[in-house]
Parts: sequence; structure tokens; C-alpha cells
Amino acid sequence: MKKKLETYFDRLWPITRSLTGDGNRESLKILSEIIDLKLTEVPSGTACFDWEVPPEWNIKAAWIKDSNGQVIVDMAENNLHILGYSEAFNGKISFEELEPHLYTLPDQPELIPYMTSYYKRRWGFCLAHEQFLKLDTGETYEVYIDSSLDKNGSMTVGEAVIEGKSKQEILFSTYICHPSMANNELSGPLVMALIYIELRKQKNLKYTYRFLFAPETIGALYNLSVYGTHWKNNLKAGYVVNCVGDPGNFTYKKSRIGDSLADRTAAIVLKQTEADYEIIDFAPLGSDERQYCSPGFNLPVGSLMRTKHSTYPEYHTSADNKDFISFGAMQETVLKYLEMIQVLEWNSHYLNTLPYGEPQLGKRGLYPTLSKKGERAFVDAMMWILNLSDGEYDLIAISERSKIPIKELIPVVEILLKKKILQVSGNFKENDSL
Amino acid sequence: MKKKLETYFDRLWPITRSLTGDGNRESLKILSEIIDLKLTEVPSGTACFDWEVPPEWNIKAAWIKDSNGQVIVDMAENNLHILGYSEAFNGKISFEELEPHLYTLPDQPELIPYMTSYYKRRWGFCLAHEQFLKLDTGETYEVYIDSSLDKNGSMTVGEAVIEGKSKQEILFSTYICHPSMANNELSGPLVMALIYIELRKQKNLKYTYRFLFAPETIGALYNLSVYGTHWKNNLKAGYVVNCVGDPGNFTYKKSRIGDSLADRTAAIVLKQTEADYEIIDFAPLGSDERQYCSPGFNLPVGSLMRTKHSTYPEYHTSADNKDFISFGAMQETVLKYLEMIQVLEWNSHYLNTLPYGEPQLGKRGLYPTLSKKGERAFVDAMMWILNLSDGEYDLIAISERSKIPIKELIPVVEILLKKKILQVSGNFKENDSL
Amino acid sequence: MKKKLETYFDRLWPITRSLTGDGNRESLKILSEIIDLKLTEVPSGTACFDWEVPPEWNIKAAWIKDSNGQVIVDMAENNLHILGYSEAFNGKISFEELEPHLYTLPDQPELIPYMTSYYKRRWGFCLAHEQFLKLDTGETYEVYIDSSLDKNGSMTVGEAVIEGKSKQEILFSTYICHPSMANNELSGPLVMALIYIELRKQKNLKYTYRFLFAPETIGALYNLSVYGTHWKNNLKAGYVVNCVGDPGNFTYKKSRIGDSLADRTAAIVLKQTEADYEIIDFAPLGSDERQYCSPGFNLPVGSLMRTKHSTYPEYHTSADNKDFISFGAMQETVLKYLEMIQVLEWNSHYLNTLPYGEPQLGKRGLYPTLSKKGERAFVDAMMWILNLSDGEYDLIAISERSKIPIKELIPVVEILLKKKILQVSGNFKENDSL
Repeated sequence: MKKKLETYFDRLWPITRSLTGDGNRESLKILSEIIDLKLTEVPSGTACFDWEVPPEWNIKAAWIKDSNGQVIVDMAENNLHILGYSEAFNGKISFEELEPHLYTLPDQPELIPYMTSYYKRRWGFCLAHEQFLKLDTGETYEVYIDSSLDKNGSMTVGEAVIEGKSKQEILFSTYICHPSMANNELSGPLVMALIYIELRKQKNLKYTYRFLFAPETIGALYNLSVYGTHWKNNLKAGYVVNCVGDPGNFTYKKSRIGDSLADRTAAIVLKQTEADYEIIDFAPLGSDERQYCSPGFNLPVGSLMRTKHSTYPEYHTSADNKDFISFGAMQETVLKYLEMIQVLEWNSHYLNTLPYGEPQLGKRGLYPTLSKKGERAFVDAMMWILNLSDGEYDLIAISERSKIPIKELIPVVEILLKKKILQVSGNFKENDSL
Repeated sequence: MKKKLETYFDRLWPITRSLTGDGNRESLKILSEIIDLKLTEVPSGTACFDWEVPPEWNIKAAWIKDSNGQVIVDMAENNLHILGYSEAFNGKISFEELEPHLYTLPDQPELIPYMTSYYKRRWGFCLAHEQFLKLDTGETYEVYIDSSLDKNGSMTVGEAVIEGKSKQEILFSTYICHPSMANNELSGPLVMALIYIELRKQKNLKYTYRFLFAPETIGALYNLSVYGTHWKNNLKAGYVVNCVGDPGNFTYKKSRIGDSLADRTAAIVLKQTEADYEIIDFAPLGSDERQYCSPGFNLPVGSLMRTKHSTYPEYHTSADNKDFISFGAMQETVLKYLEMIQVLEWNSHYLNTLPYGEPQLGKRGLYPTLSKKGERAFVDAMMWILNLSDGEYDLIAISERSKIPIKELIPVVEILLKKKILQVSGNFKENDSL
Repeated sequence: MKKKLETYFDRLWPITRSLTGDGNRESLKILSEIIDLKLTEVPSGTACFDWEVPPEWNIKAAWIKDSNGQVIVDMAENNLHILGYSEAFNGKISFEELEPHLYTLPDQPELIPYMTSYYKRRWGFCLAHEQFLKLDTGETYEVYIDSSLDKNGSMTVGEAVIEGKSKQEILFSTYICHPSMANNELSGPLVMALIYIELRKQKNLKYTYRFLFAPETIGALYNLSVYGTHWKNNLKAGYVVNCVGDPGNFTYKKSRIGDSLADRTAAIVLKQTEADYEIIDFAPLGSDERQYCSPGFNLPVGSLMRTKHSTYPEYHTSADNKDFISFGAMQETVLKYLEMIQVLEWNSHYLNTLPYGEPQLGKRGLYPTLSKKGERAFVDAMMWILNLSDGEYDLIAISERSKIPIKELIPVVEILLKKKILQVSGNFKENDSL
């Protein structure tokens, strides 16, 4: 898994991605080799609630030369050098004219910032502040930006679905609009593709799993315009997958609801499997959870990350590169999401079919026929499941109340279902399609 | 403001107030110079639930002389010397006969206690215990009390109202029955008069503000007999204003409800503006909140005080005098109540009119058109307000969840209302008249 | 009380009790001398939900001799030596044949374990591990077990009832199936008998009190088959009484409901009367609360114990004997249960009949006619009771909110009821038969 992650990382890394354009198409096609992506072209100008899909942006080259023809800044070297969505420009200008088009990070002088101007027409270059300081203020510079903004273009989004027994859905959503940055964002699409590969191997899934790859904000708004109504009734849990490649501890950011199934699942898995982790409250700052959790939708969408976005200094700079991430950490993230999926699949409200007193377990071979002192983890798990399977507690709640890890409860549930002492409750909306 | 407080303090201080009588009338008339008080005379015998207004008490003089004609105790010197509601008496009596009529504080031997016998006929004098110990037990004393109890008299109460757009009300209530004591009680009427003066300057108030000045207990019961039914439907928040003149930290005593708008407003203002303060639970011990929060009414009435009543040693003694209080502290109290009023006025349930995803704020000039790292307090406040303006959260709740001070949210709300991205929700009873 | 406890302990101790049999009958007959027990014989084979009453087991003798005729193990010496429900056996067998029938505690080598095989036919002996190690492995042993299993027999259960004004019930339940063990279980029936004796002396009880003595599990299931439906509507609180004889601190195990009247009563009494105690959450592991709190019934049944069962090393061994227990501790337990009964009897939702403002207590002789500073515990208690008697708070809740011990509230409630300022609320299901 680590090898596959690195191979695809290296292929995707150099591509210039943005809200729209050929870089996005190429990236999604590469991912299509391992995940069955259906690609959709959404025409520029398409309304998505209060927004509309912007013109398609493509860029071939962008550089600054000094009067000696010496190349100063060139996006061929690092695609962060060009301000995202820069309009075309070609001309010789003085330093004074150039300066307002240059963006730097004075506090991180050796790094190139990542910046964009999606909805206001500008051109600009991003560069290290230490390079900026060395520029000759008396010089005349040649600026060349070969970009296009096409109102008849389109935005490209990708989608893969694994059908389960129910039309009720689990959503994984990631974004594909950042140029060469590793943790935010390449880790997201890569981890999501690997979750897909592993999950596709499983049979008899309860839920339908939807994997969405789209540019941040406008892509999520587009997907909400397509699926929002369906999700209001059918989305059981969703996760925005990004910033999952650094070796920091897991951070789970809750959905706006705060105790949704998405949140409870992430919380119980982290609590029962990780020594150090953090669970943070929802805030309408961050990534696409801002759209999924807007008040008109208020969907159960959280985000399992490693180190929280925008709290590490490499965020949105050229330092968010291959050195910053770990393919081992990415693999761990894939496996953690798979553990959460296992909990989602097994979590139900169960009914004890013999609820008056305890069932006589001995005659079913489930209870020692000889009383004796000592440990009995299986019997304890069975007793807790039977006692709380009244249709009010789901398996997560049973695990919380009994303090028995859900991983230890699942095989006991399996036996009790087989012995028909337990059945899945049909009274709960959450399972109404089962 | 401090000057005005002191001037009126000095004029009100020497007047002998009680449940009824000319001292109360005179006090309210002095206050009428600065607050538009409507005075009402409530006849003695008027039923107020389980109580009735007592006979009107007036007193001209009260003293004790020894057999040499030497004045021992004289209410002309300190009106605490006379037991409140003492009946008339004139005669020469032995020490043994006099002693049961003398009240002292053995634990605070240099102070005169404040005591009353409103509903049982007695006469008596209060004096310093150290003076009592010096009395000659073999002496004959002349006692003179020129008081009257008039069953055809009345109780005087005062009221001022500032009308707002809604008939829903905010109540400020204070009492006017204590003779010369400074923190409890002159600070109360003075602070309330100043709140009135400042508030009257404001335009377009949402709520109607009622200011009540009446003797403790029976006055509050009378006001409840008049307004109780109205308040059950229309009182949004109320505060008993007293013990607000000492320089101690603020203490807020909650209403019986515990999380009423009165309580939430006081709590958020104190939390966001004061370093040290205390919030204490309701108890049916104290002042007029006992009546407002009786189970038949259970009104949202709390009390913002400085040091909590009856916890300071000067309470109900001659030491509760001008030295004990601070006009600066009183002014701070006025300003703190005005901060609470600002929160009450702005607190509403708002509705985001573009609730599906985020509104595109950039095209409205509310969002930077250039993405960059860094601080953005205004944008954060806007995001939180928009995200939580679903009709379920009021502004206090938004401030609590976002941890952004309500003072910083208010100007952002103002802009969003103007841009019509936000509107006041009409679905909530609390705002139903708006 | 201590003397009576010890006398009956000594008489009951040597009797061999089990799920069924003459030992149980004899034990209940001895207890009938002090508590008016009605005995019922439940035929073997009687269905109790998923279970049925087992054949009646009786045993006259059981021993092992070596080839010299030397008695090695003899239940006449300690009735724990025989595995409960052992079938009859008579024969000479080698050590190899005997060994699988011998049960020991290698970790507690000097103690005889207590073990049973109720529902699977076996025979066996329990002995100290150190004795087992000394057995001659080359020896031939004579084994003699004179026991009978009668399918036409019966299970004996005992019951006593103290009728109150209401058919609503308080349940005390204990088990009577363990042979010679002191804390678990003889302390249970003894404490319960003494609670009965003390409670019978009280007049005008509000609730009906039911005392059940039956073998563990199958006895509770039988009682549920008889009373379960009645209890679902009428059981206010119940307690499983056992492990109440050791001198450890009190432990209260909550009902599955967690905040039932049974739980709240135990919690407030322990909090207000004990310095050190423990309240533990319900778990479906333990004794008959497993049946009472099964999901089909979910009754408000907890258990006040001393040291929690199965957490002390003497549990289910020959060391759980008279040395381990304290008759003083048992008496304390009786008294603690009686304190809980007092709270149950007084706990009601009361109504203040003068809820608009405070009643004028002075004219009823309940309030000092002279205002003065100082302590006033009675007035405070009265104020709290009046303020919270709105039909929403029961007396336990008033005690919790006011922080005034319920024992101090009860006499004030009594006075207020007499003065008719308070009445019992008729609006609450919990009191609907009063």
C-alpha cells in the first residue's frame, strides 16, 4: 500500500491543478487507474446556489526575466510561483510596476506561498521573500504569462460509488484543486483512492459508499446541488478527507451536529484504538465541511485528519512537500478509516428476542455449566449486549456504556444473531432500509 | 455621573424611609427630578395575594433620656435608632422595663443594628452594644416616641417606563424602604435612576423597559398583583437592583429558572468583560427576587450585585454608610447594566437567507478576493454568524459556541442585516412582536 | 438486634441450601419465626420465561475415603465440599478417575471453593488445593454420594408483605440458595428479616412493601413470572439485599435506569449520612438485579451492599464465614435501609397552595416578627420547600437543589402540611394512588 501511495504521489505531484483546467482532468485520469472514477464536466457558468462555476483556467507558461534575459521566477520550476487564476500578461515593466504583483511571506522568507485570485481578475507571482529582497529595484523586467480563461470551459469532478444493500450513504469527499502541495492536498485523493480499493474487496456492505473528488468550495457546492436533497434523508455519515499525510497524531473535527453517527464513530474508534489523538469541535472555518455543514444542509460530515489544517507552518507553502509527509502515516489513515467503516457497518440497534429475564444461555452452549470464579470476557460481552439490546441503544452506545471495545462486541453480536437471540431492530429510521 | 450620584445620595441619605410614610414620598419626589416617576398611593389594607398593605407609619421624634434629662438615644442623630414601625410611647420606666425594648449586636458592639417590626406591634430602640453596657441599671428612663400608624393611610410606589417597539418587557426593580443605609439600599434607587437616564437617550429600543421603586416584599407583591399576569407572557428579563454600591466584584444571582434570558445575558457579559466575578444559583432567600421567582410566577428575574447581600459584616448596620460605598463602583454598575441592555437589544434568533452552502461573500465585498494566510477576525465572525443563523441559535448562543465576544459579533450582524444576508427570525415566541 | 442476628445466623449456618430441597424449606421455616413468611412450592418443570424450575435436589451424605477407610473429604464437615446438584454415585475408583471430579482453587490453596452444576448432570467434590496436592495418586478411593434429583419435586420460595395505603410497591429481594457462606449469602436473608421486623412497627405506610426470599436467578425469574406485569406499573423502587454483612463501606449499585427513585433515594441517603461510600453503575453482571433489570422489565431495582460482591477474595469460598462478617455491620445495614424507607415514604411532589409570592408566614407563627441578622435554618428550609413545591420537584430534588439534608426538610414539610400551605400533588403518576 505504501509503494502504491508513493508511485501515484510522484506522478500526481508536478501537475498544475486549480478549480478547473487540464491539470485537474489529468490528475483524475491518473487516479482512474486505481479507482473506478466517473468524470463529469460541469460547464462554466453553472449555478450552484449563490455561486457559479468560474471560467476554465489553463496555463502553459509563466516567468519573469531581467533585462539580461536571465530567468528570475518560472512556474516550470515550481507551479506555486504563479498566482492561481492569473490572467494572461506579456510586457516589460519597471520594478515599481511589478512589485504589486509579487506575493511573499516575510515571516517565512525562504518559502514560496500558495495563493489564488479565483473570482477577481489579477495576475501575480509568488516567491520566497529572500529572493524578493534581492531584486534590483532599478531593473526593467519582462513578464510572460500564457494563460487562458474560457467562459465556455468546464469544471471537472470525479465520483466513484460502491453499492451496498441500502441506499443510505456514507460519503468520502476530497478536493483536487491545489498545485504541488503534499499534505494539503495530495494526501487526500490518495488516501481516499486506497480506502476505495480496500473497501471494494468487502462483500455484503450495508451502506452505499460515495467517493467524491472535486475542487474545494465550488466543487462541494456543485455536489450539494446534485446530491443535497438525497443526502438530507440518506446520508448516515460523511468525512472530508485531507491533511492526512503528515506523521502527526489523528485529529477529528466534528460535524456541526456534534454527535452525529459520523462523530460518534470517529470518537469511539479513536478512543479505543489510539493513545494520543484530539477531537475538536466544528467550526465553519476550514475546508468543504463548511459547505456540507451549512445551516441549510447541516449534514453529518466531519473530518479525520492528522495534524489540523492551518496549524502547521508548512501549510499553503512550498514546504508542504514530499519531505513533510509520510507514506506510512497515509497508510495508517487508510486503515483507520477502514476501522471506522467496520463500526459503521456493524452499528445497529439490536433487539434481544428473549428480553424477560436472561435467556438460559447454558442450554445453548453459551454459558459455562459449572459455576466458578474468574475471568469471563465473552460472557460479560454477551450479558451487556443482551441487556442493552432493547432498541434504544446502538452498538456504539453499548460499547460506551459497557466499556467493552466495539471490536470485542462485534464477534459476540455475530454469534447471538446466528443463535437468533438477537436481531436487528426494524424500528429505527437509521436502519429503515435493512 | 459620579457627581450626580453623590449629590442625590447626600440628599436622600438622612430621610427616614420605611414600608410607608412621608419619608418614602419625599425620597421618590427627589428621584423624580431625574427620572420621570409616576407615583401611586396604594391604600393601607389593599390585598396583595396572601398579604395586605400595612397601616401607614410616620414618626416625628423618638428618644430616651435619663433622669437628669440627658439624651441617651435619639433618632434625630441616626434614624436606625428607632425600631421600624415602632408604635407611639411616652413614659418613665425603669431599666428592667426598658431593657426588653433595646436591641443591640453583641458581636459588633460599636454598631447600631437596623431592625423592624412591621407586622407585630412593638416599640423599641436599636443601639450600639457598647453604649448599652454603659447604661445605669438603677436609673429611671424617659422614653418618647411620637409615631403614628394610620389604617387609612397608604403605601407609595414609583414607576417609570421607556416604551420600545415591543410590548415585551425588561424589568428593573429596586426597593425604597430602608432608612439611612448606603449600599443596602440607597445604591439601588440611585443606580436604577442613572440607568434610566442613559437608556432614555437611546432610540429605537426593541423592548419596553419598566423601572419600579417600591418597598421590599409588600411593594413587590403589589407590583406583581398589578403586572404579574402581563409579565408571565411578556417579561423577557428582569433584575432586582440593589447592593450595587460597594467596590467588590460583581455577583450575579440567577433567576429560579437558571438559564433564562436574564441569566444568560448577565453571564455572557460578565464572562466576556470581567476578570473576576461570581455567578451564584438562585435561592429563595434575599430580596424581591423571592417574590418574582415564587412558583406561581417563576419570572426570569435575577440580580446583578456587587458583594452579595448579607455576606458583608456592614449589612443591616450603621456601618453601611457613605464610607462603605464608592460612587465609582456605582457608575461601573450602571455601565455594566447598560452593556447587558445592549446584549438584550441585539440578541435575536437570526436567519441566514442563503443557507445552502456559504453565500459568495467576495462578490458582496465581504471576503478577501486574494487568498492568503493570516488573521481574519471579521471573516471568522461572519462565518460563525452565518453558519449558526438557522433560527435555533440566538446571538448569545452564537457567541458561546464560537467563543467570539458578543461585542464583536454585533457590528458584523449589523452589516449582514444591511446586506440582507441575515434577517431576524420571526418564528420565535421571544421575538413575536417584532 | 445484633443478638437476634447472631442467634439466627448460628441456626441457619449449617444447613445445606441449594436451588431446591429440604435445606431451603428448613431455612425459610426458621426465618418464619421472626417474619410472617408465606411459603410456596413451585413444581419442578414450571416454566419461567426461557427457563424451567429444575428437579428437586436433596442430599444426605457425601464423602471420599481412601483404601484404609480413612475419610478424606466429607460434606458433614463442610457442606461446600459437595459440588451443588451432584448426582448420586457410589463406587471405588482410581485417582485418575477421581481427579476430574475434584475442584480446587490453586491461587487460594487453603480454601474450599463453592461450586455448582445446576443444569448439567455431574458429580464432584470441592476441596482445598493443599489437601488435593497431598492425595496419593496411586490410591484407590471410595466415593459415596447419597443424593436425589426429583422431577416431581419443587422449589420453595418465601414471601412477606406489609400493606400500605397504596398498591404501589417497594421490593426487597434476597436469595436463599447458598450453603454455609456468611456474607454471600446469609447476611441477606437476615438483614431483610430485620428490616421487616422494624418496618412492621410503623403505622400508615404509604407504600406496600414486599419481601421475597427465593433461590438466585430461577427464583427471581419465578417471581417475575408472577409479579412482573404488576411491577411494571406499580414498582416504585426495589433492592436486592445481599453481601451486607462485612464491615466495609456501603456500595450502592444502581438500577439499569440509573436515576430511578430507587437510585435517587440510595444516593441522597448515602451522600447525606455517610462519609465514605461508593455508587457504582449498573452492570448486567451480579445477582438478581440481572433479571429485574433485563430489558423486558427494566425495573427500578438496585442493590445496597457493603463491599461489592466478587471483589473480595473470600467470595464463594469457605473463608466467607462467621469470622468475615460483623453483626454490627449488619445492624447498620438494616438501619440504613430504614433511612432509605423513610425518604421513600416522605418523598412526594408537593404543591405550595399559596404560590403567588411568598405566603405571609408571620401571621401563621412561622416567621420571626422581628427582623434581625443571623441564622435561621428553619426559615431557610421552609422557604426552599415553598419555592420549589410547584409539582415539578419531589422532596429529593428539593434537598438536592437547596443542599438542605432531607432529614431536616421532613419535619418542616410536616408543619407546612398541617398548616395547609402545602399539599401532596395529585398530578404525578408516581403518587397516583394516594
